[in-house]
Amino acid sequence: MSSVEPHPVPEPGGRTQPPPKERLSVALIGHGFMGAAHSQAWRTAPRFFPLAVEPEMSVIVGRDGPRTEAARERFGWKRAETDWQAVLADPAIDVVDICSPGSSHAEIAIAALEAGKHVLCEKPLANSVEEAAEMTEAAVAAAKRGVRSMVGFSYRRVPAIGLARSLVRAGRIGQVRQARALYLQDWLADENGPMTWRLDRSLAGSGSLGDIGAHAIDLVEHITGASLTSVSGTLETFVRERPLLADGVGLSGTASSERGQVTVDDAAWFLGRLAGGAADGAVGSFEATRYATGRKNGLTIELSGSRGAIAFNLESMNELAFYDAAAPAGEQGFGRILVTEPEHPYMANWWPTGHTIGYEHLFSHEVKDFVDAVTSGVDPEPSFTEGLHVQRVLDAVERSAADGSAWTPIP
Amino acid sequence: MSSVEPHPVPEPGGRTQPPPKERLSVALIGHGFMGAAHSQAWRTAPRFFPLAVEPEMSVIVGRDGPRTEAARERFGWKRAETDWQAVLADPAIDVVDICSPGSSHAEIAIAALEAGKHVLCEKPLANSVEEAAEMTEAAVAAAKRGVRSMVGFSYRRVPAIGLARSLVRAGRIGQVRQARALYLQDWLADENGPMTWRLDRSLAGSGSLGDIGAHAIDLVEHITGASLTSVSGTLETFVRERPLLADGVGLSGTASSERGQVTVDDAAWFLGRLAGGAADGAVGSFEATRYATGRKNGLTIELSGSRGAIAFNLESMNELAFYDAAAPAGEQGFGRILVTEPEHPYMANWWPTGHTIGYEHLFSHEVKDFVDAVTSGVDPEPSFTEGLHVQRVLDAVERSAADGSAWTPIP
Amino acid sequence: MSSVEPHPVPEPGGRTQPPPKERLSVALIGHGFMGAAHSQAWRTAPRFFPLAVEPEMSVIVGRDGPRTEAARERFGWKRAETDWQAVLADPAIDVVDICSPGSSHAEIAIAALEAGKHVLCEKPLANSVEEAAEMTEAAVAAAKRGVRSMVGFSYRRVPAIGLARSLVRAGRIGQVRQARALYLQDWLADENGPMTWRLDRSLAGSGSLGDIGAHAIDLVEHITGASLTSVSGTLETFVRERPLLADGVGLSGTASSERGQVTVDDAAWFLGRLAGGAADGAVGSFEATRYATGRKNGLTIELSGSRGAIAFNLESMNELAFYDAAAPAGEQGFGRILVTEPEHPYMANWWPTGHTIGYEHLFSHEVKDFVDAVTSGVDPEPSFTEGLHVQRVLDAVERSAADGSAWTPIP
Amino acid sequence: MSSVEPHPVPEPGGRTQPPPKERLSVALIGHGFMGAAHSQAWRTAPRFFPLAVEPEMSVIVGRDGPRTEAARERFGWKRAETDWQAVLADPAIDVVDICSPGSSHAEIAIAALEAGKHVLCEKPLANSVEEAAEMTEAAVAAAKRGVRSMVGFSYRRVPAIGLARSLVRAGRIGQVRQARALYLQDWLADENGPMTWRLDRSLAGSGSLGDIGAHAIDLVEHITGASLTSVSGTLETFVRERPLLADGVGLSGTASSERGQVTVDDAAWFLGRLAGGAADGAVGSFEATRYATGRKNGLTIELSGSRGAIAFNLESMNELAFYDAAAPAGEQGFGRILVTEPEHPYMANWWPTGHTIGYEHLFSHEVKDFVDAVTSGVDPEPSFTEGLHVQRVLDAVERSAADGSAWTPIP
Repeated sequence: MSSVEPHPVPEPGGRTQPPPKERLSVALIGHGFMGAAHSQAWRTAPRFFPLAVEPEMSVIVGRDGPRTEAARERFGWKRAETDWQAVLADPAIDVVDICSPGSSHAEIAIAALEAGKHVLCEKPLANSVEEAAEMTEAAVAAAKRGVRSMVGFSYRRVPAIGLARSLVRAGRIGQVRQARALYLQDWLADENGPMTWRLDRSLAGSGSLGDIGAHAIDLVEHITGASLTSVSGTLETFVRERPLLADGVGLSGTASSERGQVTVDDAAWFLGRLAGGAADGAVGSFEATRYATGRKNGLTIELSGSRGAIAFNLESMNELAFYDAAAPAGEQGFGRILVTEPEHPYMANWWPTGHTIGYEHLFSHEVKDFVDAVTSGVDPEPSFTEGLHVQRVLDAVERSAADGSAWTPIP
Repeated sequence: MSSVEPHPVPEPGGRTQPPPKERLSVALIGHGFMGAAHSQAWRTAPRFFPLAVEPEMSVIVGRDGPRTEAARERFGWKRAETDWQAVLADPAIDVVDICSPGSSHAEIAIAALEAGKHVLCEKPLANSVEEAAEMTEAAVAAAKRGVRSMVGFSYRRVPAIGLARSLVRAGRIGQVRQARALYLQDWLADENGPMTWRLDRSLAGSGSLGDIGAHAIDLVEHITGASLTSVSGTLETFVRERPLLADGVGLSGTASSERGQVTVDDAAWFLGRLAGGAADGAVGSFEATRYATGRKNGLTIELSGSRGAIAFNLESMNELAFYDAAAPAGEQGFGRILVTEPEHPYMANWWPTGHTIGYEHLFSHEVKDFVDAVTSGVDPEPSFTEGLHVQRVLDAVERSAADGSAWTPIP
Repeated sequence: MSSVEPHPVPEPGGRTQPPPKERLSVALIGHGFMGAAHSQAWRTAPRFFPLAVEPEMSVIVGRDGPRTEAARERFGWKRAETDWQAVLADPAIDVVDICSPGSSHAEIAIAALEAGKHVLCEKPLANSVEEAAEMTEAAVAAAKRGVRSMVGFSYRRVPAIGLARSLVRAGRIGQVRQARALYLQDWLADENGPMTWRLDRSLAGSGSLGDIGAHAIDLVEHITGASLTSVSGTLETFVRERPLLADGVGLSGTASSERGQVTVDDAAWFLGRLAGGAADGAVGSFEATRYATGRKNGLTIELSGSRGAIAFNLESMNELAFYDAAAPAGEQGFGRILVTEPEHPYMANWWPTGHTIGYEHLFSHEVKDFVDAVTSGVDPEPSFTEGLHVQRVLDAVERSAADGSAWTPIP
Repeated sequence: MSSVEPHPVPEPGGRTQPPPKERLSVALIGHGFMGAAHSQAWRTAPRFFPLAVEPEMSVIVGRDGPRTEAARERFGWKRAETDWQAVLADPAIDVVDICSPGSSHAEIAIAALEAGKHVLCEKPLANSVEEAAEMTEAAVAAAKRGVRSMVGFSYRRVPAIGLARSLVRAGRIGQVRQARALYLQDWLADENGPMTWRLDRSLAGSGSLGDIGAHAIDLVEHITGASLTSVSGTLETFVRERPLLADGVGLSGTASSERGQVTVDDAAWFLGRLAGGAADGAVGSFEATRYATGRKNGLTIELSGSRGAIAFNLESMNELAFYDAAAPAGEQGFGRILVTEPEHPYMANWWPTGHTIGYEHLFSHEVKDFVDAVTSGVDPEPSFTEGLHVQRVLDAVERSAADGSAWTPIP
């Protein structure tokens, strides 16, 4: 990281500020939904967590100049650029945070790693296993030179998920036998909803499976320490044509009389066998759908073990349900833990007990962990290797679905 | 289908029934809602609980001959009568179960006790403290002759309440500091709903306070073992006139253009100081209302103690929430105990784990406990003395309300 | 208490009972858990529902004389028998209610139908498709002679399920796209739990799939009016050996050092494609397990449609969650309907609003519907044909599981 | 507001930023819990809401130099000061945001208003009615000069509360008859917890009543538009002595053997009569306690009306329960609205549907509304007049409690 100009001058009244912290100069690629979330995290994390360096929101990069400039102003970056390669060539930049569409991840990430930049890359790592493998190779090579990389499965940073992981890893629910992981959304439930780029395979890469199912996979493995070894999958597209909007792509606007073809999965289901960790020999059932009417962001995880169970729903992300089968007979029940205690991951740095956090906090946690890893010289998690593994699971699900749900091993 | 002989004759194959159990001959006074519930209980309890005697549903008593006969057939009693005094004079009757309106309780119960009949009397014990005191005097005298009496606070027999009591009495929530007991119903929320006898003080004796608030009082004291010693109360009648029905009294029928005066409380609130048991020095807040829109039978009890808490809602009567403040930091939460385990009160005699019970089961539990007390020669609970105490609390609340909510001691 | 004459003689005052209703004489085969539930239903249904005939609990049949006699006394039947064929030969018997183990269903049901008895047969209809098909053939033939038959999928009689069906059939949730039906229990979660006959395929026929998964299948089809046409299934036995009890079979007793082989599925998952009704083209995901720690009787059904959704959990059986996507934007949400209103199926005959019912009430509803069908001369539902269909689904799941989860059509 | 130095210089590559927005220079007084929350809000609001001016986090003020400097760095302010009067004298300052202890509010706020600074003052407005009245007088006078003031009842800015208000004001729950507003915390449940300044009346002014009960009062009035006109109150101190910490005041540290006197209320209950708005003639029941074991931040509001009801719990702040009694019979139920839709207040500016917000967002909403009011020249809400009214209610509750719960009018 570079030690940038401190620029404080003597304060009114002759008081001076202490010497500034060393700074970590960040470039953000992309300014959509994820760009907004990451911007808020880079701005917020250093205010709540004692980072060893001060992140500097140096440059935001987008293809379109005026839109990128608007994003710069809104999200609070120092400058806006349209040439990501030029930004990577800038020696002042320490970190490249990739929030652009998945199809661009491989090229940017590999170039950044080769340029010696630490990389935080949004999920999915890439749109194909091949690209993900190349990125992972680059990441492994870069790590040997002290260059760090991390893939953004932000839900690992939900405090309730961290608590779940601690309980499971400590054996509090015993041998996990079954996992149920559903990611339920409903924004396609209305068949007259418009066509969007997310429903076009050539643009989006995948449908609900890759977009949201990936989170379910990562969380089950993260919490239990087990890995999926084979899957049996099914994909379905319920509505194959949708009205095109006048502007052709957006989620809002005026519908035209033309219709576009939906070429991704609307919903995906799969079973998987798990090996290792606390879930060795377990079976996981997974679902990812955009047709679960009434479920807005219903990522639900339930793990059933020989001594207990845990249950989580992202719509109530400050809560974890924990069933302790070691409690006295007659007193057992799913306890609703409000995960806002100082004992809970990250929570001591936010607000007093009982004061909840929201979605964007996960990205502040991610930035905190990423910066801690960078400054302490360790590899952050989840690594690109883990991201690649998730891609391989998604790929196996697709191949299984194309093969009549035949059980398909994960390479 | 065949029209068979109603009474069994010697069995095919020469098998004979074993000699019958000694029987306990029951007379039921009243055939309204409570009469129906008690009938089902007398019929059901001996099928699920090993009673020492076999209750016999001998006679049902009502004022109106044809209606009583219809109730006899529907509820399954042997015969119907209109003269309760004649029934009390029948030496074959062992038990008198009083489900008639509160204004008749004192006369019937005292006569029955003096006639040596065991008495189960629905709550409220009476419509006035004076009557309740006379009944209690009679009950105490009768007890010395081995004649038993019990008042029907059936919610004591909810298994979740029994579990709550066990936990509280065992110190699992420590020193109880606060009780919150609300009984929320909504059948008066619509101001155009008709006038009914329940809203006429001369007929009903009281409004929501006596009808449902009485349960809240009894449960808090039953669970904690503490007694209310003084109260500060407020009563309110939100809608003072309601349309009369053509038939003048019912809850259904055609509304007329005339309006009747509501002369009871629509809602009641009071605070009370508790002494003794697990809640010595605690403060309880109580509410009883028929205007809690959307709450159908919302009797909710929450007890907060130095080491934990319990929470209950009658609308989900198979559940108890228990918070154990002695659990490790970070793992504490209200646990939802599904109260269907064999370890839970009464439940071993019903269905397997996870199979729930309903409202009327409480009366089967009541009959079971009453019969057990009668056959084992002990006084059942709750006693008339306890019923009198509840009447005294209700009376003190009314007096406090009339005195500007001044704190009023319970005699 | 007095030891009274068991049979009524002319009443005091010369009153006589009215002439008895025509009666429907019932024989119950079996006296286990289901025998107890059916007994309570035969006793209770006529007290709450105005049946055209009075059911008579004539005879209970079991293999073991003393145990059957004990059941007779406990459950309240007139006489006990050990020879079911003799009972079927008795012309006084109108109805045969089969609650014996599944392996005996075919023989008894076919004989009963041929003897002109109306038959109520517990689920599963049989332990094999072949037997179920024979039973169905017999039932179809009997129906032509006015002899009725019904299979006991009692959960159809949950009022909340009836409400769900009404809403779905009326189009209130639009085109159903996805069904999620899980039946979660946990009584095998502890791997040291003992071996029982239910885990021995030669005795139980199947594991969780047939025992509880069958309910999930029936409910999804019942509510939507759709039929499963093909399935992809997976079965798993997590714990393959369990300690034998000293007495070899029971769920309680002293564990011995010997271990028995578990030969049925511990858990089953399958996806199915639905055709017809409100769910034409939908995909259903199903799970049945005895390893869902903390879930005691968690039969959960969620249906997602183009205009709404419904959700149900048997552990809270008096509730239905309904999401109306036609509600104004910003006001949509899953509503918790407390299904205790007179507008709800069966509920007008029980208790006032807000007073809940329990598990056994479902059987009273079943008896009510069965008797109504018998007396009004129509075929009750679910028919043996429907029971056979469920067997065929179960069979297809097993075949799919044996074939690597290949999609398998339902014949 | 002043147009401060823009300080951007030509960017690398010759690009220039657009001319900066006019800025609004803010001074924050205090750096405790509220100071942290307000800091995050001043930093965040302009990134998510299109404010007409850019707030500038100019100066943070505290008594202790080093601690204030540490806060400056942590919270991200430009400079730190210890002399608030000097800051008020600085013409560059536009806004004074008062987060210091309640005892200092009156002096600072009045001076700031007289100096022409817009004032945002945390609740409670003051520690006494007298001070609050003086502040209100100053605010009214200042408003005539275009100087704005606002008191920080931040819970008004919960989107679910805004939705509740809209529904209630639109008549969707009809005539409100009852309000139940409880603020339940449990941090004093353990009687061995240490003495703290919050339990010393001379420092804290009041206990649970003023600290958290004030929110309950404000919300009921805000949602319904009604005002409390009289109250009957009770206060209780359950634990009158607590161990002193070695350092005498904090919430952490080593307990000493000495004990301090608790001189504020541990819990408060009161009933109030409401007049005006949607709750004319209603009765509200209120509770504020720090002894509700297991409730961490349980601010619950339930309003029962003639046509519906709403229910809210701050622990699940992204949800609102709404009961619509105008829905068809049999379909009514409390709906859980996930308040994350673009139709909901403030939410269009945050994340997509289903992505929740947390506690601190309320302060961003507050800053947004405050800045909007300042820049558009209208008086923001809640005004000091409203804050004074809440103080008068609190004072009446205390006087009622001292007078045996006698009904006491609100001046």
